[in-house]
Amino acid sequence: MNQDYIKPDSWSIIEEGFESERVKSSESLFSIGNGAMGQRANFEEEYSGPTFQGSYIAGVYYPDKTKVGWWKNGYPEYFAKVLNAPNWIGINLLINGESFDLFKCTEVKDFRRELNMKEGWYERSFVATTPEGIDLAVKVVRFLSIARNELGAIKFDVELLNSDATVVFEPYIDSGITNEDANWEEKFWKTLDVSTRDQRGFITSKTLKTEYHTTAFMQSQVFKNGHLVPVEASEVLFDEKISFRYSLDAQKGEKITLQKFGGYVTDMNHKREELVSAAANVLEQAVSAGFDTLLNEQKNAWSKIWEMADISIEGDVKAQQGIRFNIFQLNQTYLGEDARLNIGPKGFTGEKYGGSTYWDTEAYCIPFYMATKDQHVARNLLTYRYNQLDKAIENAKKLGFTNGAALYPMVTMNGEESHNEWEITFEEIHRNGAMVVAIKRYVDFTGDFSYIPEKGLEVMIAIARFWQQRANYSTQKDKYVILGVTGPNEYENNVNNNWYTNYIAKWCIEYTIAAIDSVKNEFSQDHDRIMAKTGLTAEELARWQEVAEKMYFPYSEEYKVFLQQDNFLDKEIIPVSELDKTQRPINQKWSWDRILRSCYIKQADVLQGFYFFEDHFSMEELEKHFDFYEPLTVHESSLSPCVHSIQAAVLDRMDQAYKFYLRTSRLDLDDYNNEVKEGCHITSMAGTWMSIVEGFGGMRVVDGQLSFNPKIPNGWEAFSFKINYRNKILKVNVAPGKTSFSLEGNEAIEILVKGKAVKVEPNHLVCV
Amino acid sequence: MNQDYIKPDSWSIIEEGFESERVKSSESLFSIGNGAMGQRANFEEEYSGPTFQGSYIAGVYYPDKTKVGWWKNGYPEYFAKVLNAPNWIGINLLINGESFDLFKCTEVKDFRRELNMKEGWYERSFVATTPEGIDLAVKVVRFLSIARNELGAIKFDVELLNSDATVVFEPYIDSGITNEDANWEEKFWKTLDVSTRDQRGFITSKTLKTEYHTTAFMQSQVFKNGHLVPVEASEVLFDEKISFRYSLDAQKGEKITLQKFGGYVTDMNHKREELVSAAANVLEQAVSAGFDTLLNEQKNAWSKIWEMADISIEGDVKAQQGIRFNIFQLNQTYLGEDARLNIGPKGFTGEKYGGSTYWDTEAYCIPFYMATKDQHVARNLLTYRYNQLDKAIENAKKLGFTNGAALYPMVTMNGEESHNEWEITFEEIHRNGAMVVAIKRYVDFTGDFSYIPEKGLEVMIAIARFWQQRANYSTQKDKYVILGVTGPNEYENNVNNNWYTNYIAKWCIEYTIAAIDSVKNEFSQDHDRIMAKTGLTAEELARWQEVAEKMYFPYSEEYKVFLQQDNFLDKEIIPVSELDKTQRPINQKWSWDRILRSCYIKQADVLQGFYFFEDHFSMEELEKHFDFYEPLTVHESSLSPCVHSIQAAVLDRMDQAYKFYLRTSRLDLDDYNNEVKEGCHITSMAGTWMSIVEGFGGMRVVDGQLSFNPKIPNGWEAFSFKINYRNKILKVNVAPGKTSFSLEGNEAIEILVKGKAVKVEPNHLVCV
Repeated sequence: MNQDYIKPDSWSIIEEGFESERVKSSESLFSIGNGAMGQRANFEEEYSGPTFQGSYIAGVYYPDKTKVGWWKNGYPEYFAKVLNAPNWIGINLLINGESFDLFKCTEVKDFRRELNMKEGWYERSFVATTPEGIDLAVKVVRFLSIARNELGAIKFDVELLNSDATVVFEPYIDSGITNEDANWEEKFWKTLDVSTRDQRGFITSKTLKTEYHTTAFMQSQVFKNGHLVPVEASEVLFDEKISFRYSLDAQKGEKITLQKFGGYVTDMNHKREELVSAAANVLEQAVSAGFDTLLNEQKNAWSKIWEMADISIEGDVKAQQGIRFNIFQLNQTYLGEDARLNIGPKGFTGEKYGGSTYWDTEAYCIPFYMATKDQHVARNLLTYRYNQLDKAIENAKKLGFTNGAALYPMVTMNGEESHNEWEITFEEIHRNGAMVVAIKRYVDFTGDFSYIPEKGLEVMIAIARFWQQRANYSTQKDKYVILGVTGPNEYENNVNNNWYTNYIAKWCIEYTIAAIDSVKNEFSQDHDRIMAKTGLTAEELARWQEVAEKMYFPYSEEYKVFLQQDNFLDKEIIPVSELDKTQRPINQKWSWDRILRSCYIKQADVLQGFYFFEDHFSMEELEKHFDFYEPLTVHESSLSPCVHSIQAAVLDRMDQAYKFYLRTSRLDLDDYNNEVKEGCHITSMAGTWMSIVEGFGGMRVVDGQLSFNPKIPNGWEAFSFKINYRNKILKVNVAPGKTSFSLEGNEAIEILVKGKAVKVEPNHLVCV
Repeated sequence: MNQDYIKPDSWSIIEEGFESERVKSSESLFSIGNGAMGQRANFEEEYSGPTFQGSYIAGVYYPDKTKVGWWKNGYPEYFAKVLNAPNWIGINLLINGESFDLFKCTEVKDFRRELNMKEGWYERSFVATTPEGIDLAVKVVRFLSIARNELGAIKFDVELLNSDATVVFEPYIDSGITNEDANWEEKFWKTLDVSTRDQRGFITSKTLKTEYHTTAFMQSQVFKNGHLVPVEASEVLFDEKISFRYSLDAQKGEKITLQKFGGYVTDMNHKREELVSAAANVLEQAVSAGFDTLLNEQKNAWSKIWEMADISIEGDVKAQQGIRFNIFQLNQTYLGEDARLNIGPKGFTGEKYGGSTYWDTEAYCIPFYMATKDQHVARNLLTYRYNQLDKAIENAKKLGFTNGAALYPMVTMNGEESHNEWEITFEEIHRNGAMVVAIKRYVDFTGDFSYIPEKGLEVMIAIARFWQQRANYSTQKDKYVILGVTGPNEYENNVNNNWYTNYIAKWCIEYTIAAIDSVKNEFSQDHDRIMAKTGLTAEELARWQEVAEKMYFPYSEEYKVFLQQDNFLDKEIIPVSELDKTQRPINQKWSWDRILRSCYIKQADVLQGFYFFEDHFSMEELEKHFDFYEPLTVHESSLSPCVHSIQAAVLDRMDQAYKFYLRTSRLDLDDYNNEVKEGCHITSMAGTWMSIVEGFGGMRVVDGQLSFNPKIPNGWEAFSFKINYRNKILKVNVAPGKTSFSLEGNEAIEILVKGKAVKVEPNHLVCV
């Protein structure tokens, strides 16, 4: 844990006291988003201290030219980057002509930030003394509207505490921004038009290369002591900036308020020539509704989200705060309505990693969205990959694969690969398997098999083809091997026969073959269409079968465990507990080669396979593997603790499960990895949800039936969550020794609890 | 073979006919150098066609900021680059006020380049018609003086063929140059002073960061029909350039000549404040000697080099031209007098690869320099590494090694690592072994054991320490293993137990232990000093011994060969001969991961070990390994064919040996790898010499005795070479069925020929 300044609170994230070293970290933690856009919690007014400015628009990216030291054949020439978008939140504040800057104030008291997760707004307040000796009380409330996802609103209050003064607000929009994460220090935006009309400002700019046209807009109103002041602003137009200037003389004790509405409209949703009128329309409706009405809409929208997605924990406020922060961030990042979008690893909280879509979506995020939203949301996430199948085939072709084999990219925005480390880009191919796992989970959970004949099977066939071609026959083993891969544990590169990869490859082929059979029997028209489209022959199927049947799995007779890779046991096996603490985290302390030849595991690898395919293994096997691998795991990936938490819960090791739970749920709040200033770890937050629902709740789908095996960490009084299972909303409440279920709607459901069938009738609490 | 425009000639490299697509390639092939500086064969006058401008000063480098896509701990922050130096050769030519540019001429006839290797000069001549219709005959001779290594000279003749004209020469020096191989498109030089005096020009500039101060200088004279014309030049001084202007009116048929002297003096050899006066001094002596005298000096200097280094081949002019080109380039690059310098992989012919010193020096170049120069030259090369020992220890420390273990860098200028691919920089550690092999070869060949107590042993101890720490004990094998390495075959990365690496590691430890014993017995003072300095204890020695004794070597019982690495036999083994030609070279056609998991070998790997340690293995073992590995080798490294040529000769496969010989000796002339435009492969040229002397000549040192096993390729009438063996100069002439030896000096030598003792008396030809 590297920080603990966030106050425990069950519904809010709260910081108290101003420390400039914490600004970047808090800018990440207090980020807001509404699925369509988002922004770091940058100050609206000028700030000369260390800050990392970031505003982002979902789906808007830039293909930055790849930067590598040594080019390897197969690298993508361009690398899709999350783009810092034009800034619409800026409001400079001048007191008696001097620009107000928190970093320069002689005193800052009562500084407080609150991110109210229940209602979806962010507030910052403080009392500050300017170098000129003027005391101000400032309160700023900001939110991005869920109901109107092109709109954001800011209410900026200034109260003069010790003297009269001239107060000037300069709300502005600015398209002259840069990316922190730019390879070549180039600009990514070209400003096309800067205009004002009726006290509104509009900047239309386009991204270079990708040509996303976007209009950033704003309109402001000024209030004195709560009353609208009909002051005309003077305008200043620059090449890439518009600034309005509202000047008011105020007396000691008076409160001056600026309300600013702003946001973006883009040509993803509007015609290019209508961007400015669309923006004007958003502003007109916003002003006519007014700040308070908009804020009420916001509270209602979040109330609906929480109604379904909330997990409550009684008796452990830090745990409660952690899970709500995670659920809140996931919903800020992706709401599931737009199949063009996906869940970026940093959401709208930072730029790092570029691209937006990793295997994280399929491996970690889909269960959360599947269970807390309508099932079309998970289907949209699957469809995203279906829509990118052609590019995945193209990607595999670049690496020498043929016949429609597909390799989904490690990172992508538009389906093209956006990563360029050979050991990851070309070798971390297990990601392909997660695409099929996600389809299986979707079908199992929702019962909607129709996705497979409609879309899924084409993806599955292309992936099975990849696995068959990627394996090669080893004469000496008389088995098929998969050489030169990186498994989920990225602390081993270019290894042979990573068990997880081999296992998921075999499983993908077998699952696909079984699906082809089912489709043939039940959806024969689709079957014929797909066979015609893919040209799949009986001979090819036989080759798949051969590879799956003769797949090689490294195994240790001595330890009775599958080996992470062929040569794992040649390493020195020293548990993490015996590693000197000064050496941690090893990814910051050790050279890369030393990490690679160590036995230390970044995140679940063999155990990731045991997580996906839990029902393929006995409890004894799980225990043996957990006891072998967990002690060697440094959990230096945000995706690591959740899987271990779930498995520890399965093994009835609740203390350990709880420890991992805390680490995943408060990873960013407590900054375990010392990097929260770069942004939050959004995708791993879905893992936190899994830790509770699948770990503590023990939720599984067993032969089409929802099943629970509830457990509760020591000290918790109760926890509860809701599941949308096949359009039935089941609420589960777990307390020590007692689990209760209640069902919305009017149709009963039979579930399994600790293996026993329990019937839950609508609106009747069932206690077990 | 990608080109064949070089005319076969036994002593010259000749190009005929002007083709602008060949300009960059010829700029590499016709490069000149004198060990202290060198330059690509750029045209002196303006040229607007495709060209790669390059002038280089030995030892002057720039630490460019490392550019990587993804940073790995342990990467060096800076990367030493060979530096394009200020240009002193420029001579613009204006005819009637129009700048002469070969690329724009309406006709170019009789274009010819000749690099006269025997005498060490480069000539370019042609007849061209300008767009204005003026016919010129031009001949330019240029050389870099071996005798005065700060000086170069150019003689530029222009003859007016069809009309009178005003001829203007504008000789200039220019420090406003850039590097093609710059990571961040920055300039590497800062110009400090631009001045002229007495018709001489001086530009003093310094490299940024490294602060090498250099004065580029020039002085010119003009002749008409061979007679000096006392014309005053007008001068133009720019910020980073000086240009003189000599204007003459000439009549049809007249010949106007500019002689230009120029070059560099640097603060490696002069005080900074004396650079300009040193430069003036060089110019004064040059002008007073005159072009012809300087050219005669040059011929004499090269004659002395050839006297010792030449290899003559009768009956095969292309083979003859190849070996002489290789010997010529090696001598242009490094003459062995300055222990601060080394042999860059591109010499003075290009910038690629950065840095200057690879394991190439120890593995390939030392035998050539040892046998063709005084033995202090090889000692200088060894001393270069001794002087960088502290930095090699520092380098190992960065990677987590302790106790004075050293890892010599993969690439360096000043001892610091200058490479940044983790799989090479951190893992291609076998290079450390070559440092010790070079010491052993030096001691064996020269008989000068004193180098070991004086300097070598400290290097050897630090390297042995590295190997002991880098190996780890494998419980399952009950052996020491070396995990995560890249062998000489860079087409496998991060493999375990690369046989070559393990073998050389074990050998280094054992050789060092034996050397410590010898030093203890024969140089006890040195022994005590070294033990005190290194703190080597009996316990540590025991640990070394344990690692060496229990080192693991992968072996195939089925094939009876050592395996290149643990998992080599899991690969699909398909000989290169069955590989579709469209797939070659695989490093241009295949993605990196595909190369890595293929069985194809870039350059000798196991066979490199059999080359270094030939006497450890039987002829049958060599044959088995050669037959297993050579058919899988694609020879896509310039360092590959020579080793195979030598081993094919040992195995009496003279046709194969000859094929490999041609490939190594004419690699650049025939552009086998389609990249000669980037520069020549200097270090592999020493391998060509080895192919003849060690391959065809069968030269070895056996228990301190020089031994030969001469063989001759089909069709060769004879070949001959000279060896400086312990200050005895032995000339060997091999003809079919007959080898003759002659000895200079006045002391007889007993040698072995095909295993039989032969006494060679001075100045008596011995035929066998």
